[in-house]
Amino acid sequence: MALAAGRRVTARALLYAGAWLGRTQAMAGGGDGARRFANHRVLVEPDAATGVAVMKLRNPPVNSLSLELLTEFVISLEKLENDKTFRGVILTSDRPGIFSAGLDLTEMCGKNPAHYAEYWKAVQELWLRLYPSNLVLVAAINGASPAGGCLMSLICDYRILADNPKYVIGLNETLLGIIAPFWFKDTLVNTIGHRASERALQLGLLFPPAEALQVGMVDQVVPEDQVQSTALSMMSQWMAIPDYARQLTKIMMRKPTVDHMIKQREADLQNFISFISRDSIQKSLQMYLEKLKQKKG
Amino acid sequence: MALAAGRRVTARALLYAGAWLGRTQAMAGGGDGARRFANHRVLVEPDAATGVAVMKLRNPPVNSLSLELLTEFVISLEKLENDKTFRGVILTSDRPGIFSAGLDLTEMCGKNPAHYAEYWKAVQELWLRLYPSNLVLVAAINGASPAGGCLMSLICDYRILADNPKYVIGLNETLLGIIAPFWFKDTLVNTIGHRASERALQLGLLFPPAEALQVGMVDQVVPEDQVQSTALSMMSQWMAIPDYARQLTKIMMRKPTVDHMIKQREADLQNFISFISRDSIQKSLQMYLEKLKQKKG
Amino acid sequence: MALAAGRRVTARALLYAGAWLGRTQAMAGGGDGARRFANHRVLVEPDAATGVAVMKLRNPPVNSLSLELLTEFVISLEKLENDKTFRGVILTSDRPGIFSAGLDLTEMCGKNPAHYAEYWKAVQELWLRLYPSNLVLVAAINGASPAGGCLMSLICDYRILADNPKYVIGLNETLLGIIAPFWFKDTLVNTIGHRASERALQLGLLFPPAEALQVGMVDQVVPEDQVQSTALSMMSQWMAIPDYARQLTKIMMRKPTVDHMIKQREADLQNFISFISRDSIQKSLQMYLEKLKQKKG
Repeated sequence: MALAAGRRVTARALLYAGAWLGRTQAMAGGGDGARRFANHRVLVEPDAATGVAVMKLRNPPVNSLSLELLTEFVISLEKLENDKTFRGVILTSDRPGIFSAGLDLTEMCGKNPAHYAEYWKAVQELWLRLYPSNLVLVAAINGASPAGGCLMSLICDYRILADNPKYVIGLNETLLGIIAPFWFKDTLVNTIGHRASERALQLGLLFPPAEALQVGMVDQVVPEDQVQSTALSMMSQWMAIPDYARQLTKIMMRKPTVDHMIKQREADLQNFISFISRDSIQKSLQMYLEKLKQKKG
Repeated sequence: MALAAGRRVTARALLYAGAWLGRTQAMAGGGDGARRFANHRVLVEPDAATGVAVMKLRNPPVNSLSLELLTEFVISLEKLENDKTFRGVILTSDRPGIFSAGLDLTEMCGKNPAHYAEYWKAVQELWLRLYPSNLVLVAAINGASPAGGCLMSLICDYRILADNPKYVIGLNETLLGIIAPFWFKDTLVNTIGHRASERALQLGLLFPPAEALQVGMVDQVVPEDQVQSTALSMMSQWMAIPDYARQLTKIMMRKPTVDHMIKQREADLQNFISFISRDSIQKSLQMYLEKLKQKKG
Repeated sequence: MALAAGRRVTARALLYAGAWLGRTQAMAGGGDGARRFANHRVLVEPDAATGVAVMKLRNPPVNSLSLELLTEFVISLEKLENDKTFRGVILTSDRPGIFSAGLDLTEMCGKNPAHYAEYWKAVQELWLRLYPSNLVLVAAINGASPAGGCLMSLICDYRILADNPKYVIGLNETLLGIIAPFWFKDTLVNTIGHRASERALQLGLLFPPAEALQVGMVDQVVPEDQVQSTALSMMSQWMAIPDYARQLTKIMMRKPTVDHMIKQREADLQNFISFISRDSIQKSLQMYLEKLKQKKG
């Protein structure tokens, strides 16, 4: 945990020390700009002319939502929100094939309660920032997005999924023997309704593109090479609406869900810590992680 | 405002002085009866034999929901509700091509706070009367129905839309830089669900018939010349149900939404007055109205 | 009522005196085991190997949910829930053609308030047991299921309907001049959403298979002779999920609805008693029952 915290400070320091501006210039200067900040988990490609920034997750091998990534993501988003130049964000993966594998199990396994608390607060913070964000958020889902990866999409205003049968999407927590928190559930219910959520959550369903579209998990399925262009074109539709009216309307829709989460935030945190600290849960997570390692090895 | 209030009193007086009966007789006497009451904004064609009254909006050029129309509408509806002869109302437009353009922007522009208050109370009253009405309400949507026009349809028990690509329907408030009130939103969510509402409201979507049907904004799309006959035939299906059981079931479904609105009614009123009185909002409404005038001129 | 209570005691006694075990052995021994307990309203066919029990309603002629059946059902279910061997229940009818005709009108007609209270408590108890049950519940709907029969299906985790146009399903209470209680309504809204519920409940719609599937009243429609095998195969999909995670997820989805019902339970009971005791309601139920008798005679 000390390590993680240390890393986080580094990330913050980098950003506050002008990395943002530097990156903007780098991007404007050409495609190789991204390579300069290889230590970053989130590449931001801002386009001041259109007011749209592309945020690319880059956390090899599977874009796990580590504490480091979450922290960097929220800081980057905050900067975009405070910069009046930007009105929209396209969220995508720098690694086509995997949008995000979701929460980082290594942050939840073999650590101490203080680390679990820090990690969970970062997950909560991500949702609390993104779900009611004033920015237009479009998910350009160019890879599989299970669990927390799915949540990252659900949080957005519009979801475009690449038409590849391997790119499944869903909240599959039960398959690992864990439970999606209530605010994951609320976000899903707001998107696909009560009945479809009940079934999808209990069975831990991962929907391939056609089914994801049918159940309402995504808004559009397009050929893989058209995901980014479609995202840009949908973004312009959303940005054609006067910001003020659109933002107040978004808040009106999402505020009850956000308020409910804030009210339960502390209880949810304590609940997570005590759940994840259980021997049985730790054991099953360890077994799962070992299996993953063997697979790769 | 004084003028509007004056007009309203006139309308009331006319109605209470036997206009209702007069109109009934006129209608029974032939098609020219409607012409006699050219000053009316709502034509009521009651058919005592079937227990169904047709209410036709007639407020040229676009059936705007002016204070006068709203007042007359509510009084007419109240009379039907109190008359045991009538169990169902078909709501339609006397001007095929436009069902209703929605709230009357001239009532919200260049007036004083007292007028805004009076107008908004009338809009609230319309919803509070219609949404939990004991009558069966069928919308025969024979024209475009944006914004408040859409709300008039959503309030009904069943919606039939004429299959004409120009007859779009939706809550498009954000396109004018304004926000649908929360009870418009609640009515929409009750009809098409949370996710579809979130998107439709933020983008101010106006759905052509096929899309309106698919998203659930209307229940049926039929050729333009079959709208009224379909409405009558659907009405008979609804009227076949014992009134008492149907009404209690309707109240059970809609009461939570109505109760929530009543609780927030005063806050909603104050919110509207302060919002609409803003210079920026007044300016943008004025510009919009000028543009409309130039279009016609 | 005394008779019903007497019968109930008998049923309890039988069960507690080892009938369960006896029946298990009988079933294991062959198909004729079921015949031994001809006085039972619920046949339980437990399969310890798979952990799945089939519960078959058998209350001729139409599987009415009599006080006796309800009581036996809840006791049988409780036993299965307490027996760690069993993780899933398939709910079906022993009489293909009719899944269940719903609540037993003879329990609500011509009896005294104490009987109405006892009966309604049993109906409430059924829902309170089944809706949040830890078991996986799959409905193999092999016949018509109006009203309370429909509720029995809605309570389950998954619904399979035989593809026979006569096998209609729906909450058709209004057709009899009565009103579905709010928790029937809540269960329906959780399944098919607000708008579809509003229409289905007011009109008392009974959906044939294709429409039932489209509106979401059932999850799957299959040829009549494949209902049971499909139920078993779907059951194995649900049972592949770790119990603990699946159960907590189910509770998370259904608890708000259950909590709301528990809070209103006593009011709902009083409401039922006073409603059903009305002369007008008793009269219309009597007329309906007479008509049914004449039909048969």
